[in-house]
Amino acid sequence: MDNSPSLALSKTVFLAVYHLQGTQEQASAMAEDICIEQTVEFPPDLVHRADIREQIFGRVESLEQIGEDLFKAVIAFPCEVAGNELTQLLNVLFGNISLKPGIRLVQFSLPNSLLDAYRGPRFGRDGLRARLNVTKRPLLCTALKPMGLSPLELADLATQFSLGGMDLIKDDHGLADQSFCRFEERVKRCAEAVNNANEQTGKPCLYFPNITAPFDQILDRARLARDAGAGGYVLSPGLAGIDTMRRIADDDQLAMPILSHPALFGALTVSKSEGIAYGALYGQINRLAGADACIFPSHGGRFSIDQNECRDLVDATATHMGDLKSIFPVPAGGMGLDSVKDMLSFYGNDIILLIGGDLHRHGPSLKENCRKFLNLVGADDE
Amino acid sequence: MDNSPSLALSKTVFLAVYHLQGTQEQASAMAEDICIEQTVEFPPDLVHRADIREQIFGRVESLEQIGEDLFKAVIAFPCEVAGNELTQLLNVLFGNISLKPGIRLVQFSLPNSLLDAYRGPRFGRDGLRARLNVTKRPLLCTALKPMGLSPLELADLATQFSLGGMDLIKDDHGLADQSFCRFEERVKRCAEAVNNANEQTGKPCLYFPNITAPFDQILDRARLARDAGAGGYVLSPGLAGIDTMRRIADDDQLAMPILSHPALFGALTVSKSEGIAYGALYGQINRLAGADACIFPSHGGRFSIDQNECRDLVDATATHMGDLKSIFPVPAGGMGLDSVKDMLSFYGNDIILLIGGDLHRHGPSLKENCRKFLNLVGADDE
Repeated sequence: MDNSPSLALSKTVFLAVYHLQGTQEQASAMAEDICIEQTVEFPPDLVHRADIREQIFGRVESLEQIGEDLFKAVIAFPCEVAGNELTQLLNVLFGNISLKPGIRLVQFSLPNSLLDAYRGPRFGRDGLRARLNVTKRPLLCTALKPMGLSPLELADLATQFSLGGMDLIKDDHGLADQSFCRFEERVKRCAEAVNNANEQTGKPCLYFPNITAPFDQILDRARLARDAGAGGYVLSPGLAGIDTMRRIADDDQLAMPILSHPALFGALTVSKSEGIAYGALYGQINRLAGADACIFPSHGGRFSIDQNECRDLVDATATHMGDLKSIFPVPAGGMGLDSVKDMLSFYGNDIILLIGGDLHRHGPSLKENCRKFLNLVGADDE
Repeated sequence: MDNSPSLALSKTVFLAVYHLQGTQEQASAMAEDICIEQTVEFPPDLVHRADIREQIFGRVESLEQIGEDLFKAVIAFPCEVAGNELTQLLNVLFGNISLKPGIRLVQFSLPNSLLDAYRGPRFGRDGLRARLNVTKRPLLCTALKPMGLSPLELADLATQFSLGGMDLIKDDHGLADQSFCRFEERVKRCAEAVNNANEQTGKPCLYFPNITAPFDQILDRARLARDAGAGGYVLSPGLAGIDTMRRIADDDQLAMPILSHPALFGALTVSKSEGIAYGALYGQINRLAGADACIFPSHGGRFSIDQNECRDLVDATATHMGDLKSIFPVPAGGMGLDSVKDMLSFYGNDIILLIGGDLHRHGPSLKENCRKFLNLVGADDE
């Protein structure tokens, strides 16, 4: 092999930040191991080619103690190893080492040469605000549920929510294409209901059907949703594939905002010492994959995430990533009207507030309950 | 809503088994919560319709203490809630509750009415053995690496491995379509090399290129691999999407064996108290999604899994799931010739032994090293 032509890669790198559990010595070995495991995956002593060692291996940029038996490692990987594919970028960031204990991916940083391969969010925060004519206040969202209602009944809920002034109405992520509530009928009826209500109110409200579906059907569902007059898509990348979301987002014919749902993603984040940190997954990976807003399990709801993790997540929805737009964080998971005040004080105005079941709890008129929700956030400055 | 037509579902259910961490009281509340969270995701006290309560809600079938603060819950879900879509089945099994602490999906059981929606593995253990004319001994597999080699160099390795008697030669899962080693050239050259060697040896050896790729490219890569004369596919469902693998497996035109790689899957299993158990993910979900063999991080290698988890995983590759074929477990992760004896005594003969880098360690001739590997498992009875 020594006579073969040498590699001549660009030597530009991207950086990945990991938290490593162990002693200094262990963490140092873990960091070196990541450099090998995520690239050549080959005993380094058996790699005799200098060009492969220099141009393919990852490299430890820094290792810093940040707690008891806790270290932060920054690893540089050659851009060409990830190429221009999101699947392979995810593989380099966390493919094999997801199988090892004590390693958590907490952040990554891509140079423009790599970011150029990603369109990212088509709308982002500004684009979604522009579509809704809401410049300052948080956007308000609710969900069509419970599962078991017919398309007509869901459309009736959609009418009341849009007349009540909601900005966004999403399908519950569990509404797929069940025999008791088919996708096509549901989406047509709900889109029509929302668009009729919009004519009455003169205010845009966007309906986001859930298009999460098998590989062969997801593009068709997106097209059907667009043609029916929907205003965006709900998609669970954990179920349908992260690159599947990117594919929908990149499609100029399907161009509507995407609300990313965290179903199954929880398993990636729930361990504190392994998996992927909330910010890296919900903020950064969602943005690479074209989500315009990301639902996540807020602290204070029925899920397990603490305030610091929420802050990191929100930061990552807006942190600098080349030209990629900032996206809306959508704290959720059992939020109610009673928690709006706390949510606003914690998150500020650049969020989408999502209240589902609790909107049904505050009196018999859903329209009235929506107005209560609106009153809690105050009128928009416009 | 009380006047609307009632649901009239079949009342057939599928069962999911969870491990729950907590006291009896906590576990009982968690089990009840799963019934709601995974179906209506709506405050149950606000669901007034009896048909929805009876026909959509999950139902706790049993709750049993199995350890200190550890309970096993069996939950029944209506089949129609999952419908005939793998994406939605995964959502019901573990979508939202993946976000909650102390819940681990350990197993599931689907009635034939649901299983009928899944073709499952096209080849399975028997089909793969038949293709290779190996009836009893373990199948032997190695990998083309390290990354950084050119297509010609990889093809040269492939020649030596196939002349040496390997049954399967897989691309390293990190070989995608990088600028320094394009997919098309690599696959054509390696397939040709293996097929030429097969003509010399008269023994079939199958080359499995890695087709893991973005949504738009994966079908094209599979077709290119098939047309180039490859013998199967390597695919990482964690990167490309679980249903993406099912789509490839179900395609009658692409019909070749699939080797599932665990990249990124580790994050789903690495926590002992959350996520998805090895058996449910590697065995059961892989089979639903059509893998014929599943690489997993064996105990004794460089990953984190214990012997009991390995046994559960192997059991799940063959456990009864209607007509779904049994698939090969492929214990991996730093295995070497020195560990073959222990592997055989632990796993028996119905496995694929995968040795990568270590084959390069036992002398200068790869062909000879392959023969050493073969000698360790003994000749086939045929």
